[in-house]
Amino acid sequence: MAKGLSGGVFRSDLQLADGRQISYYDSKEVTRTAVDKRDDKAQPGIGHLRLDPLVNEWIAVASHRQHRVFLPPKELCPLCPTVDSKLTEVPDKDYEVVVFTNRSPALTTPSSNWKLPQISGLDTPNADAAGACEVVCYTQDHGSSFAKLSTKQIRTVLEAWKDRDSALSKLSFVEHVFPFENRGEEVGVTLSHPHGQIYAYSFLPPRIEKMLEAAKSHLAKTGRVLLDDVIAREVKDKKRIICENPEWIAFVPYAARYPFEIHIAPKRTVAAMADLDEKQSDLFAPIAKEALTRLDGVFGIEMAYIASWYQAPVNIGRDCMRLHWQIVSVRRQPGKLKYLSGSESAMGAFIMDLEPEQSAKQLQEVKY
Amino acid sequence: MAKGLSGGVFRSDLQLADGRQISYYDSKEVTRTAVDKRDDKAQPGIGHLRLDPLVNEWIAVASHRQHRVFLPPKELCPLCPTVDSKLTEVPDKDYEVVVFTNRSPALTTPSSNWKLPQISGLDTPNADAAGACEVVCYTQDHGSSFAKLSTKQIRTVLEAWKDRDSALSKLSFVEHVFPFENRGEEVGVTLSHPHGQIYAYSFLPPRIEKMLEAAKSHLAKTGRVLLDDVIAREVKDKKRIICENPEWIAFVPYAARYPFEIHIAPKRTVAAMADLDEKQSDLFAPIAKEALTRLDGVFGIEMAYIASWYQAPVNIGRDCMRLHWQIVSVRRQPGKLKYLSGSESAMGAFIMDLEPEQSAKQLQEVKY
Repeated sequence: MAKGLSGGVFRSDLQLADGRQISYYDSKEVTRTAVDKRDDKAQPGIGHLRLDPLVNEWIAVASHRQHRVFLPPKELCPLCPTVDSKLTEVPDKDYEVVVFTNRSPALTTPSSNWKLPQISGLDTPNADAAGACEVVCYTQDHGSSFAKLSTKQIRTVLEAWKDRDSALSKLSFVEHVFPFENRGEEVGVTLSHPHGQIYAYSFLPPRIEKMLEAAKSHLAKTGRVLLDDVIAREVKDKKRIICENPEWIAFVPYAARYPFEIHIAPKRTVAAMADLDEKQSDLFAPIAKEALTRLDGVFGIEMAYIASWYQAPVNIGRDCMRLHWQIVSVRRQPGKLKYLSGSESAMGAFIMDLEPEQSAKQLQEVKY
Repeated sequence: MAKGLSGGVFRSDLQLADGRQISYYDSKEVTRTAVDKRDDKAQPGIGHLRLDPLVNEWIAVASHRQHRVFLPPKELCPLCPTVDSKLTEVPDKDYEVVVFTNRSPALTTPSSNWKLPQISGLDTPNADAAGACEVVCYTQDHGSSFAKLSTKQIRTVLEAWKDRDSALSKLSFVEHVFPFENRGEEVGVTLSHPHGQIYAYSFLPPRIEKMLEAAKSHLAKTGRVLLDDVIAREVKDKKRIICENPEWIAFVPYAARYPFEIHIAPKRTVAAMADLDEKQSDLFAPIAKEALTRLDGVFGIEMAYIASWYQAPVNIGRDCMRLHWQIVSVRRQPGKLKYLSGSESAMGAFIMDLEPEQSAKQLQEVKY
């Protein structure tokens, strides 16, 4: 039986042949029952976490991913619905939105007694790479893209994100949930079918740690939520705002790192995806469509991007971190990419060749 | 008159037509005098630093770089020596090693009263992007590469690095000196002439801040230098060592982030480049050549890489940070690159598809 979620969305939970979980999200009450007819394949093993003592960061070593099992032939997209004998990752003959466990997950369910080791420099032991990696197919239409989805379809994607955020956050070994999309060959995407991913980490990712530190210190100093004040500055400065509606605002941030970078945030403070209410959820699709369409419109080409949901960690910082979506594109000009070279990748020091106000202007000038 | 440096190297200092500084480094006593015959061009302006309040990191906005002046035609490499009427960045008709100020520097000399603002969240003012960006040409031979240089030539490059580290460290507005090389189109290199760069930052780059924090805490806890202990573990584990000599050791680090990653460090503790003594300097070339040659040998192709010198900041951490060279390659397999996508670039959480021991084995098996 399908389970009713908010927004009129219904979820059907099934299992793939190798035991992985798959959930269908539909905008009407249907109960999915399609059986995965592929040969049962064992799940790959679990990788491990190693501590880099030079910076005290965990590295997930997922060497089992090198020997990935079952990659379908090129003419068969594994994210399209299953048609006749063409068996894909999605057993049903059609779908709206579907989420399933990654076939070669970098992070996966650990044994029940798993615990993240205390960081103690060089003596820190390895740990199983606990967490989860999921694939989110945005539509069955292979040639579409997130920006081209209907507002109703985006609403269903959002319900899927919210539902998975909620479910993953309840796992004892999950500390942070990160839904994202890599789009374009320029960022290494090999499957062009419109899809994103969700990584659930069993440790705080370095960037989240750093954001948390800044947010905590801002809260302690001012009593306010940092991103609230960041948005207030954008509203005051006005010139970097790309679009907005009563519940959401999209802007090029004051200190953008990438030639084209758009942050999209709910106007009312929300710690994480699962906390978005009906009104916020209903008004997400229009701003997402407009911002992404403007991005593609700057050069009149489908822009390669990384779209990342930042939110509060599962167990801490819920009072000072808040949900927002960062979309960054590495394309500077039609024929030119920005590469993360020495300064960015080795030092973490970003050099921006374009004023954020200039890229905001280019995005504002796109007809929509 | 040329100035004698260690290692039998002599330096001649001159100015380019637009006022930029150029230094020739020669392995014999010659005094360079060639005049830059190009039209005098004004230097581009200075960029500015903006604080990203979400993580308290400085972003250098260098929009003046978009309008770069004088880019020579494609058939004329600007890093080759000047021949007849083909006027390049190097006015002399030949050279061994040459260092000059970048024509469109992201960081440059500020006014004399420049000061880095205190970080105070959203109220932090912008600052001029103080610092320096220099180009280091490793050889006049356009088709060569660092690995193919003679040991004598590498010794001269090293003296140039040491000399520039020393000079840049003395500038009142410089906090950290970072010599590096991006090689290969895969990492965005457009000039194939063998060369590296030096960035001198007026702030601590985020990665250095983090390394400093780990090194300080290790010193406080153990009384020892972190990298000393890291190397001791590599020596004990043995299996990730690629090559060594009495003064240097090269290894794939225990928690490597990239498919092929080699760290090369002097065995005796040295805080920064300029502190390398004669014995260490003499034995750098053989290990550098071997490590880079092995890297190219893994797939029998010139490997794209980012080679970064990490060292102690100019004014702090000299007692706990130490010099080492990190060479990382994004190539996983002959036809496959590792892209920094969502997890790495947005979360800072690295996923390694190859065990460091496996990539060490591949590097060890290359015939040398």
